[in-house]
Amino acid sequence: MLKDEVRTLSYRRAIVDNAHLFKGKTVMDVGCGTGILSMFCVKAGAAHVYAVDCSDIINQAKQIVSDNNMADKITCIQAKVEDMTLPCGKVDIIVSEWMGYFLLYESMLNTVIYARDNFLKPGGTLLPDKANMYIAGIEDSEYKQEKIEFWNNVYGFNMSCIKNIAIREPLVDTVEAAAQMTTACKFMSIDLNTVKVADLTFVRPFTLKGTRNDFMHAFIAWFDVEFSKCLKPISFTTGPGAKYTHWKQTVFYSTEVLSVSEQEEIKGSLSCKPNAKNPRDLDITIAVDFDGKHCSVHLSQDYFLR
Amino acid sequence: MLKDEVRTLSYRRAIVDNAHLFKGKTVMDVGCGTGILSMFCVKAGAAHVYAVDCSDIINQAKQIVSDNNMADKITCIQAKVEDMTLPCGKVDIIVSEWMGYFLLYESMLNTVIYARDNFLKPGGTLLPDKANMYIAGIEDSEYKQEKIEFWNNVYGFNMSCIKNIAIREPLVDTVEAAAQMTTACKFMSIDLNTVKVADLTFVRPFTLKGTRNDFMHAFIAWFDVEFSKCLKPISFTTGPGAKYTHWKQTVFYSTEVLSVSEQEEIKGSLSCKPNAKNPRDLDITIAVDFDGKHCSVHLSQDYFLR
Repeated sequence: MLKDEVRTLSYRRAIVDNAHLFKGKTVMDVGCGTGILSMFCVKAGAAHVYAVDCSDIINQAKQIVSDNNMADKITCIQAKVEDMTLPCGKVDIIVSEWMGYFLLYESMLNTVIYARDNFLKPGGTLLPDKANMYIAGIEDSEYKQEKIEFWNNVYGFNMSCIKNIAIREPLVDTVEAAAQMTTACKFMSIDLNTVKVADLTFVRPFTLKGTRNDFMHAFIAWFDVEFSKCLKPISFTTGPGAKYTHWKQTVFYSTEVLSVSEQEEIKGSLSCKPNAKNPRDLDITIAVDFDGKHCSVHLSQDYFLR
Repeated sequence: MLKDEVRTLSYRRAIVDNAHLFKGKTVMDVGCGTGILSMFCVKAGAAHVYAVDCSDIINQAKQIVSDNNMADKITCIQAKVEDMTLPCGKVDIIVSEWMGYFLLYESMLNTVIYARDNFLKPGGTLLPDKANMYIAGIEDSEYKQEKIEFWNNVYGFNMSCIKNIAIREPLVDTVEAAAQMTTACKFMSIDLNTVKVADLTFVRPFTLKGTRNDFMHAFIAWFDVEFSKCLKPISFTTGPGAKYTHWKQTVFYSTEVLSVSEQEEIKGSLSCKPNAKNPRDLDITIAVDFDGKHCSVHLSQDYFLR
C-alpha cells in the first residue's frame, strides 16, 4: 500500500507541507500500519503522536519509529480504538488512511468516527475530512464477454447458472477513461466532522447522461478524498483517467445492455448497507430506469462486495 | 481457474482423448468445483462419476450437471472426503485437480492420498499420477529492488526492518525465461500411486550450474504434472518460458547476491514441511553453499508460504 504513490504523496503533502496545523499539537493515527503517517506528523512538528493499530504490524511500527529516531515523539499502541484509552485524554488532530475499495468496503471509517467522538478535542482537526462517491456508465463488451458471458460455453459445457453469481460480484479493476460513455454523478458526500455510522446505510438517486451513442454494459463507482483544512486544499481521486491507485475502480455489470444515445438520461438509485452477517461486507443494489430511443430498461440488481 | 487453458485443456486431453481408460468405469472427482472434470469423464464414456467437494460450489456443480443433461451419470456430493462413504464402495479411477502454488501450498494432495487409500480399487488409475518440482537461479535486480530494497528508503524513512519480513515471503509471480541464469534441478518427484503424507515433509539436495556470468538474486521453483497412463502421456509444466498458468512460478529472494560465473556450481538443499499451526501453510528453508571465483556464500534462509 505504501507503493501507492498517489495516496502516500497526498498524505505527505497534506501533513508535511502544512506544519502550521501540526506545530506543537497532539495527534492520533488511527490504523497506523508501518507508522508512516505518524512520522509525517513528527516531521510537520507535532508535539506527540499516538499511533494505534490492532494488528501485529505495530511491532514493525515500533522498530521503524525507533530506527528513525522518533521514539520520543511517537507512542505505538496495539489496541482496538474502541477498547482503549489515551494517556493524554484527547488529541488535537486525527489522521487516518481508512478508505477501502468502493470507499466503504472493509473500511475503517466506523473506527475513525469512534475516535472522533471519543478522542478528538472539540474543534479538533480530521485529516482527511471529506470524501465523495461517484457513479458513471461504461462500454465494456470485451470484459463483460470474458467475465460474464464466458460461462455460457466453458470448454463446450453450459455453465450459464454461474453468470447469476458472477454478475453479483462487483470487480475491482482499472477502467480506461475512454470506456466511460456517460457523465459522472456524485451520489454521496461524507463530511467526516459530522458523519454518523447510520449515514453509511443509504439510498441515493443518480442521473447520468449519455456523452455519445454507445452500448452500456456496466456502472463504475469511485471516490475522491479531500484534506480541506490544508492551506491549499489537497485532494486525490480514484476515478478513471486519473493516476493509478490501488483502489482502482469498482465495476458493476448490468444484466441487460443499455443502448444509449447521446444526451439521453439514465436515472437510477444506488443503495448500500453493511451485510447483516458480516458488517465489513457490503450489500449494494443498483436500480435503473431508462427509456431511450433504442431500448427501455427497468431493473434492480443486487451486488455483494465481499 | 477454469480460464487457465493450459490446465483445463491438459485435463481434457488426458480424459476425453483417452476413452479407453474410462469406458464403463466408475470415477471419483476429488474437489470437483464446478464439475468440469466429471463432465469430461462422462464424455469419455465413464459409467458413473462421484463428484465430491466440501464447499457450497457443489450447488452450482449440481445445476451445471443437470443443465448439461448428465444428472444420471454424475452424483454431486457435498462432503469432506475424509468423512464420507461412497454408494459404490470403491471406484476404478480418481481424477483431481489438487495442485497449489509451489505444487504443495494449500494443495489437496493429502485428500487425494486419503481417497486413493480408501476409495480406489486395487490397480485403479489416478489422473494425474506424477508430479515433479524444480529449482533454478535467476537474475532479478529490478524486482528485488522494488520488492525488497524499497524498504531501505520509504518516502525518506528507514523501514529496512521490513526487509527481513518481506524476504521470507516467497512471491508467486511470472518470471521471464531470460532471467534464468543457471540450469534447473529436479529436486522432488512424486508418484501419486505410492506417495505417503509423510513424504511431503522433506529435505532435498540440489545442484545448479551457471549458464552465463551473471548475478543471482533469487531462486525460483515450479512443477510439472503428468498423466502417464494416457495412450500418449500428457503433461504440462508451470516453468518459466512455458505458456502462462495461474500457478506462475514461486520466487525466493536471497539475502545475499551471488556473483556466478558460467559453469560454476551452486550446491544447496531445499526443505519443506507443513506449518505446525496451520498445516496448509508451508515452512521452507533453502540452504546455499557457493564458492565462486568472485564470491563465497554460505547461508540458510527460512521462508513462509502463507
